[in-house]
Amino acid sequence: MNKNSSNIMALAPTTSNKRETVCIFGTGDFGRALGHKMIQSGYPVVFGSRSTQASNLIPKDAEVLSHAEAAQKATIIIIAIQREHYNFLTSLAEILHGKVLVDISNNLKLNQYPESNAEYLAQLVPGAKVVKAFNTVSAWALQSGTLDASRQVFVCGDDMEAKQMVMDIVRALGLTPLDQGSLLAAQEIENYPLQLFPMWKFPILLSLGLVAFFFFYCLIRDIIYPYVYENKDFSFFIAISIPNRICPILALILLALVYLPGVLAAIIQLYRGTKYRRFPDWLDKWMLCRKQLGLVALAFASLHVLFTLVIPIRSFVRWRISSQIVSQVLNNKTEPLNNTNAWLSDSYLALGILGFFLFVLLGITSLPSVSNNVNWREFRFVQSKLGYLTLILCTAHTMVYGGKWFLSPSSYRWYLPSAYMLSLIVPCAVLVVKFVLIFPCLDKPLTRIRQGWERNPQYSE
Amino acid sequence: MNKNSSNIMALAPTTSNKRETVCIFGTGDFGRALGHKMIQSGYPVVFGSRSTQASNLIPKDAEVLSHAEAAQKATIIIIAIQREHYNFLTSLAEILHGKVLVDISNNLKLNQYPESNAEYLAQLVPGAKVVKAFNTVSAWALQSGTLDASRQVFVCGDDMEAKQMVMDIVRALGLTPLDQGSLLAAQEIENYPLQLFPMWKFPILLSLGLVAFFFFYCLIRDIIYPYVYENKDFSFFIAISIPNRICPILALILLALVYLPGVLAAIIQLYRGTKYRRFPDWLDKWMLCRKQLGLVALAFASLHVLFTLVIPIRSFVRWRISSQIVSQVLNNKTEPLNNTNAWLSDSYLALGILGFFLFVLLGITSLPSVSNNVNWREFRFVQSKLGYLTLILCTAHTMVYGGKWFLSPSSYRWYLPSAYMLSLIVPCAVLVVKFVLIFPCLDKPLTRIRQGWERNPQYSE
Amino acid sequence: MNKNSSNIMALAPTTSNKRETVCIFGTGDFGRALGHKMIQSGYPVVFGSRSTQASNLIPKDAEVLSHAEAAQKATIIIIAIQREHYNFLTSLAEILHGKVLVDISNNLKLNQYPESNAEYLAQLVPGAKVVKAFNTVSAWALQSGTLDASRQVFVCGDDMEAKQMVMDIVRALGLTPLDQGSLLAAQEIENYPLQLFPMWKFPILLSLGLVAFFFFYCLIRDIIYPYVYENKDFSFFIAISIPNRICPILALILLALVYLPGVLAAIIQLYRGTKYRRFPDWLDKWMLCRKQLGLVALAFASLHVLFTLVIPIRSFVRWRISSQIVSQVLNNKTEPLNNTNAWLSDSYLALGILGFFLFVLLGITSLPSVSNNVNWREFRFVQSKLGYLTLILCTAHTMVYGGKWFLSPSSYRWYLPSAYMLSLIVPCAVLVVKFVLIFPCLDKPLTRIRQGWERNPQYSE
Repeated sequence: MNKNSSNIMALAPTTSNKRETVCIFGTGDFGRALGHKMIQSGYPVVFGSRSTQASNLIPKDAEVLSHAEAAQKATIIIIAIQREHYNFLTSLAEILHGKVLVDISNNLKLNQYPESNAEYLAQLVPGAKVVKAFNTVSAWALQSGTLDASRQVFVCGDDMEAKQMVMDIVRALGLTPLDQGSLLAAQEIENYPLQLFPMWKFPILLSLGLVAFFFFYCLIRDIIYPYVYENKDFSFFIAISIPNRICPILALILLALVYLPGVLAAIIQLYRGTKYRRFPDWLDKWMLCRKQLGLVALAFASLHVLFTLVIPIRSFVRWRISSQIVSQVLNNKTEPLNNTNAWLSDSYLALGILGFFLFVLLGITSLPSVSNNVNWREFRFVQSKLGYLTLILCTAHTMVYGGKWFLSPSSYRWYLPSAYMLSLIVPCAVLVVKFVLIFPCLDKPLTRIRQGWERNPQYSE
Repeated sequence: MNKNSSNIMALAPTTSNKRETVCIFGTGDFGRALGHKMIQSGYPVVFGSRSTQASNLIPKDAEVLSHAEAAQKATIIIIAIQREHYNFLTSLAEILHGKVLVDISNNLKLNQYPESNAEYLAQLVPGAKVVKAFNTVSAWALQSGTLDASRQVFVCGDDMEAKQMVMDIVRALGLTPLDQGSLLAAQEIENYPLQLFPMWKFPILLSLGLVAFFFFYCLIRDIIYPYVYENKDFSFFIAISIPNRICPILALILLALVYLPGVLAAIIQLYRGTKYRRFPDWLDKWMLCRKQLGLVALAFASLHVLFTLVIPIRSFVRWRISSQIVSQVLNNKTEPLNNTNAWLSDSYLALGILGFFLFVLLGITSLPSVSNNVNWREFRFVQSKLGYLTLILCTAHTMVYGGKWFLSPSSYRWYLPSAYMLSLIVPCAVLVVKFVLIFPCLDKPLTRIRQGWERNPQYSE
Repeated sequence: MNKNSSNIMALAPTTSNKRETVCIFGTGDFGRALGHKMIQSGYPVVFGSRSTQASNLIPKDAEVLSHAEAAQKATIIIIAIQREHYNFLTSLAEILHGKVLVDISNNLKLNQYPESNAEYLAQLVPGAKVVKAFNTVSAWALQSGTLDASRQVFVCGDDMEAKQMVMDIVRALGLTPLDQGSLLAAQEIENYPLQLFPMWKFPILLSLGLVAFFFFYCLIRDIIYPYVYENKDFSFFIAISIPNRICPILALILLALVYLPGVLAAIIQLYRGTKYRRFPDWLDKWMLCRKQLGLVALAFASLHVLFTLVIPIRSFVRWRISSQIVSQVLNNKTEPLNNTNAWLSDSYLALGILGFFLFVLLGITSLPSVSNNVNWREFRFVQSKLGYLTLILCTAHTMVYGGKWFLSPSSYRWYLPSAYMLSLIVPCAVLVVKFVLIFPCLDKPLTRIRQGWERNPQYSE
């Protein structure tokens, strides 16, 4: 016991290797997992519990005492109990005065309570220094050591020194502390582990919907129509041909949808004559998920590339080519090179390759570690200039690809135009409007508006 | 007013949710954008302005006062005016004493003034705690909330506490503060947003020049020559065949240029007998942009891969293969498998695949987040060992590919050797010199020189 | 001299641009390199040395004094000497009192001494503030300025202010300081630069072993067997055909080995009825290198994709196809489309494409900068749900690919089953066991165990 209390004295950094005792209130799963890990990292651990008899569940090397006794043994007290049971801490207020209380709790829902658990704790025990930490780490990961990701522990608190002490423990456990500032950040930190890709929901739902629509559209045109009229069974098109039609269509439409809100915003600002009024909510939300939209588009583009490159390996394609050659031989005719066809085929492939290449570049620059290393001017250059170039190349790729069938009546089956024609509507619209907005008569006022000028100052908020 | 001043008192962290009043000097675009954002984040904002009458442009919830009155209401004062107008602040020196002044200004040119704006401000108002921040964020991005990238706010300042307060505001606005140390860092922070890929300029200009040269070279050899002598129109080669000749050539040359400066440096050090004399300036600059050179080379290599993989889909190639087969049938001859050809074709493809694979690995390890996670020894291993292996594989790929045409006279059109032969000069030179440098008689003195040994100590700087 | 000492006084942040004098003990290579760099960055540097006569090796602008004299000139003293010679510092204890000593030493072996060099230094000179820094940077890189990677300098120390001063110097040299907490972290920081991909050793050795095994296996079946029985020379299969058989096999086996330890852990926990007993050591180690195993598997999968996509360009394949067509024509028969074949070929290609696509997604999310931006729940979703989906798709891809040969006796050459059959054993086993574990009768107790429940509490540690 004496040894322990000398440890507590050693709070000020010393050259001794001994680590300070840490107290954990609560012997639930996370409390025990944290205790195990801390003992492994060389911290003496003491548990504070209602029933002071040592349970088998608790690490052997840890003492179990009453809350009051345990609290007296340590400067840092980890509150591993649920918010609903925080009340009893008010009775310990005197003992907890000046101690560092680490709130590690999580909620079950986003913004479950008006104030964060850590702020609630700080109100209950005003004399203590409350630090929020560890809530983003899972007990299972902590114990099994499989912390491949999520080594980051968000830490916030009003007392700098208390925060430093907690961050030192975090580092000693092999995790990376991230200082998130004062206790005001606790709400956000508590919401963080409850999220499941919130920004991805809209882009993924939208693309699922579009996939379903275009799947049935192509099914009707490419499989049911030939089956009904020509009695041919092309059901195996479901595996590659139809996906390879859906993917490029979705990639193009979603890419255009990335640039559509910017164009709409410009129109709204020109119309209103000011940038100081907020955009409609749906436009704001749309703008915020542009990166995700673009990445989903890139995923479809990548699939399109893979589906296209395996074409010559497909058994069906090999059969078709060899039957063409055989029939050519049997008819004893040699076809000359069709120069127009060679030009068309080579140029849509080249456009597609360049478009995809730029698209991948955009994707790479949106990696967090890359975009953190470019400044605003560079980011705008890449995402805006290169982005529009990508859109232009991909639209041209689609147009050249289908150019010859555009107005041919045979391409309308059951009055349905080819799917790729539908895919051109949005990107062409975006490109045309953007082209119009480049004209000086519109570009100049827009630039001035974006620099803060207002046409009708009286209308601004 | 009383409520506000109690807020100011609450500077020391409290559990109350109330945020401290922030004062903004200047009602220009960026000042208003920052004010809007701060009000949204829950900060009471007061503007300091020459004309104290509330303008419509200013956020509704913000007060507008004279500079002196506004400054008294807040501890943190954001100076959203241009450097040229800083002078008037000297008259407020008494009121500003002890306040935190946040310099957010940017210049129009790199190193426009001898000292940074923030240091200039600190000289003007010696009693204030100057913090540099927010200059890397754009007003437009701040207001429209589309901060996809550039969430990073560089913060520097001499007073730790003042810096912490500003960093808390930065976090509250949803941005990531990065502590850059003392106010000495302000110059660099002010230069940062003015850069547009400074390290990429040379690699990109160089490769544009090389692309132009090789484009006309190939145009003459592969399109004009057959048109003149054989009257064949291969103009569609411009779309894929010629790019697919330029891309691998540039990839190989640029990759060799990544390793050339290292070899030159070794020769210079061996010749001088010391490592303590600086390299010529051009070599220093070349060494600093090796990473960018390598990434541009990787981009060309990726394009080469894509251009190569679409070969079997090209209409021209399909026509050529089918005419070959048809002519074979009509001549009634069956060709046996040419084992040498099979070996050559398979091995240059395999070498190319392995080379490209290692090249991509090198590219991935140069991502900031990956290279930050490897130590110096690991980085050297990857970039040096794997890098040379990549260069060897790619050079071998090129040599095996063109092996059979190397000395054939038919490959010299208008006395111009095939372009890929030109591409082999630099990589072969680098590999030969590197091979020579590995011999112990050169490697040993070089190693000693790099560990600090000097042959003629009197010559060193 | 007076000028210098006034500089020392200027320790507290000032607006003057003058940097504080730094003292370096030791004139070895790293000491000189650091000195050069600091002078370039504007720091006055004074060297402390046994022989006070200025050597040519030392930067011109630096003074060389005795240790005691040099130490008096600066607040920060960089100890650029080896641990073995630290003893003499005890004699300077009085002068060093209150100074900031920066330990930059490295060891030759992991955990060479019981305590870290920095802690040893702190014991020798108890009155000084010891900071560990700079040991992860190489002298060569520091001097030649080619700090492409490894700009990170880990800093630790018990005195916050001393640490801040060292971190400011680190920043001034163009490097990124990373605060690693108290001096206890020094051991780990000293071990860091000695590592060479420690987590990659097992995955790479394992895959090399498997590659060797499958190479000889395929060599026997695909080259030696036809040579012996059919007298055909397929030796060129070594370049592409055999690698393209080995790569997918290894990718599939290694991917299954990523998920096998998780399944084993679940079985062990179910059997023991508790999660509070440690796994066997081999399982722990296996679990820790799962990420690396997965990335090696991804590398093999990528190679497989490249090897597969070049198939139609291979000279051998072109010869085979054209001879098939020629023989078809000469026999005057036209083959109808085999619908089953078209289905099989298209579906194994589609399964492979989707599997590879998800695999690449998994790889991207394991990039440090991406995985740091997802929370634990999101990471689990990607790595567990998407991971199993990838394994299912890849296993199905392999099964459909080889479906028709599964039970055909001709596929057993010398009683050796086809290599891809061997590759299916591990993934099928993993998927079957995982499927069994999903049943509620096993899933429910497992979930409870993982939440902390124990079947036989008395058996726990």
